[in-house]
Amino acid sequence: MSIDLNADLGESFGRWQLGDDPAMLELITSANVATGFHAGDPATLLATCREAVARNVVIGAQVGYRDLAGFGRRFVDVDPAELTAEIIYQIGALDALARSVGGRVAYLKPHGALYNTIVDHEKQARAVVDALLGYPEPLPLLGLPGSRVLEIAQDNGIRTVTEYFIDRNYTPEHRLVDRRLPDALIHDPQVAAERAIQAARDQVAESFCTHGDSPGAVTMARTVRTALTEAGIEIAPFVS
Amino acid sequence: MSIDLNADLGESFGRWQLGDDPAMLELITSANVATGFHAGDPATLLATCREAVARNVVIGAQVGYRDLAGFGRRFVDVDPAELTAEIIYQIGALDALARSVGGRVAYLKPHGALYNTIVDHEKQARAVVDALLGYPEPLPLLGLPGSRVLEIAQDNGIRTVTEYFIDRNYTPEHRLVDRRLPDALIHDPQVAAERAIQAARDQVAESFCTHGDSPGAVTMARTVRTALTEAGIEIAPFVS
Amino acid sequence: MSIDLNADLGESFGRWQLGDDPAMLELITSANVATGFHAGDPATLLATCREAVARNVVIGAQVGYRDLAGFGRRFVDVDPAELTAEIIYQIGALDALARSVGGRVAYLKPHGALYNTIVDHEKQARAVVDALLGYPEPLPLLGLPGSRVLEIAQDNGIRTVTEYFIDRNYTPEHRLVDRRLPDALIHDPQVAAERAIQAARDQVAESFCTHGDSPGAVTMARTVRTALTEAGIEIAPFVS
Amino acid sequence: MSIDLNADLGESFGRWQLGDDPAMLELITSANVATGFHAGDPATLLATCREAVARNVVIGAQVGYRDLAGFGRRFVDVDPAELTAEIIYQIGALDALARSVGGRVAYLKPHGALYNTIVDHEKQARAVVDALLGYPEPLPLLGLPGSRVLEIAQDNGIRTVTEYFIDRNYTPEHRLVDRRLPDALIHDPQVAAERAIQAARDQVAESFCTHGDSPGAVTMARTVRTALTEAGIEIAPFVS
Repeated sequence: MSIDLNADLGESFGRWQLGDDPAMLELITSANVATGFHAGDPATLLATCREAVARNVVIGAQVGYRDLAGFGRRFVDVDPAELTAEIIYQIGALDALARSVGGRVAYLKPHGALYNTIVDHEKQARAVVDALLGYPEPLPLLGLPGSRVLEIAQDNGIRTVTEYFIDRNYTPEHRLVDRRLPDALIHDPQVAAERAIQAARDQVAESFCTHGDSPGAVTMARTVRTALTEAGIEIAPFVS
Repeated sequence: MSIDLNADLGESFGRWQLGDDPAMLELITSANVATGFHAGDPATLLATCREAVARNVVIGAQVGYRDLAGFGRRFVDVDPAELTAEIIYQIGALDALARSVGGRVAYLKPHGALYNTIVDHEKQARAVVDALLGYPEPLPLLGLPGSRVLEIAQDNGIRTVTEYFIDRNYTPEHRLVDRRLPDALIHDPQVAAERAIQAARDQVAESFCTHGDSPGAVTMARTVRTALTEAGIEIAPFVS
Repeated sequence: MSIDLNADLGESFGRWQLGDDPAMLELITSANVATGFHAGDPATLLATCREAVARNVVIGAQVGYRDLAGFGRRFVDVDPAELTAEIIYQIGALDALARSVGGRVAYLKPHGALYNTIVDHEKQARAVVDALLGYPEPLPLLGLPGSRVLEIAQDNGIRTVTEYFIDRNYTPEHRLVDRRLPDALIHDPQVAAERAIQAARDQVAESFCTHGDSPGAVTMARTVRTALTEAGIEIAPFVS
Repeated sequence: MSIDLNADLGESFGRWQLGDDPAMLELITSANVATGFHAGDPATLLATCREAVARNVVIGAQVGYRDLAGFGRRFVDVDPAELTAEIIYQIGALDALARSVGGRVAYLKPHGALYNTIVDHEKQARAVVDALLGYPEPLPLLGLPGSRVLEIAQDNGIRTVTEYFIDRNYTPEHRLVDRRLPDALIHDPQVAAERAIQAARDQVAESFCTHGDSPGAVTMARTVRTALTEAGIEIAPFVS
């Protein structure tokens, strides 16, 4: 039994710092690095990639809507063809930075509102898959089990990887509770750790996501990682 | 005797159209395609790359300052390390789009104020060269003869390609006349054509730049190309 | 019988020009001037206000989503409280520019996707009304007859002004046909002129909107204005 | 003897938080509130204005270059006429937000690189003064003693207010040490407090600036305020 542990990193922007990337990189196996459209200036992304490479953490492209002011957390009714081009642009930008420090982009994980939209939104889900089909190298796609985007990706021969959010609550329809609602987040690391162990035993997903951008993020990730390890569950990236 | 003909393309942004890329692509051999920081949304860049590939026009990355409102034509005192990361980001973004339609980024040409700044600005010139050294593939650099950036690039083993602006006036110090001055641009295609023929015979540069973003751009490019061809000068890209 | 003629102006951005504002200002009575979030850099807005004042054209604030890349034509699921603040910000910015050249913002007209959204979207409609209630001076609101936002505005004591789009087709539900559909726009000035005369006689709205941002915009506006005048319909602003 | 205490507030942007505005507002008498070009989304600005009004803290417009990625700390060679329009735009935007909660913009303080540039840069200094002359209401200008912008402002009948930075080091030419240099900032609150008392006794300026955007900002401001008060120096805004 082996589980990947992923988190969103590289989300600072210029003067504004967010999260403790070096500390998180000691705890996770896959880093969803921002790509500049919802967060992440190029110097931040370069530094995050350099630190990920130094710790053998796998780099994924965390692509989002072009919306710095909304941090990519607001649905934007973007034209699918434009979305496809925007995603290829973002992956390529991060990949060049990653390669300049000896790494590479090894998977795709859409961010925020885009992530939630393509659970059900047929046209935007296809736009994301079109980006993966157009991108010059094959990349696995990280997503919500049962989501439309994973179905379309599979139908098109793309490797799909399911994930479980250890510190987010779910709706009865297995969707993430909207961040604007009070019970969206689980703040207690022990609760999250117990959920994670159960989820690992139930094999609900191949990768577990822990949030990376709050003061408590490092404690949460450390608690969960320790609990999983003590429960005999191996932590290893899904990309070898 | 062979001369490359280059122009800036892909400079539309969303609702705002600029230039007639398909017409220009019939006339030039190298397209300096914008990369999103001073102009060019991803869908525009993708369309421009697709059309360049269809016409066997070589694609270069036209990187600029992060300044849409100023179209990259204003000096920004950006930190050199940040500039290096921004340039790698921009090249990688365009390269992924180009590869998704069967092309690739084959050279680098800085845009606007960045182009003029690195003629003399030691730190930003080094930052551009650092981007080329960091970028995972070797790319030639297009620039002004005698510029500091070409010197540093050569010192670091980067292929440099000199260019001559057929429709821009020069200062006595061989710099481009500032666009804000009334005599910056040459508007008469015949004058530009005669300058181009003379410059080709004098072998002042390997590539000639013709502007791509005004209503008269296509006429200018066509007149110059025809005149060069009739004068027995071959038009061919500097990248084979 | 008197009709106001309005159009969207001030929609250039930096290097990118859009529309022929001086020509349009000779033909319309109310200018919906952009406010920088979907289009319009401050220098453009200042110039447009100066020319509007010189021709006694009334200035309105054409506020939109913060989305330059999408020209404000894409729905953004922005938080209502943030939208309220953004609208007050935009009105105030334009009003200061208008006052610096002897004018003032005299009404509000939401732009693009925001305009269409608040026809039915309760929360964003209330957010727009909240902006008008918070703004230090009372401003009339221009909108679609039967729209939710006009209802809420009226309920809150705000003057509402209905408008009719002379060169846009309507759905059976009296909504504008989506711009992405082929029959969204009416291109024939004669057809638009006849529609305008009929609409004026039927008194369907107090203001008529003609588009301002295409090559044919001036011809369209001139044809419609001439036809209305010849039909004995007075053209006058709704704000005195 | 009375001294104004000012600090930069409202510098968060969307997801990215910066500074502790409510705590700072308990300690200062004048708040330089950002205006959206270098920092500050409208909802943040509105909240900051509301809290300033509640504490009787005077609101100033902290205008900057259009450069979110650089936080307004990089010189941009913007055209003076465009800069004038941008400043009027920013002041008006903040003023509308301030008035919507019962306040108003009562002075102007340029931010970051713009602040330092107009100490010597004739054209941009005039552009700032032109904005004040164009703005519909007279506003005092806060600036560095001996700066060119204050001279031009005085020559044009604008009230000028000098300020002293209690936690920044100065060059022998009485300019601020560049933030990129290691000794730019004074971190020890006691050192700053002693400097402040001496500066107050020497009457070097009418207003003292303390930084607002670091974890130690509140401690610094509290220490300085307490020391000044204990030294018998009254803390009061320069705008009554």
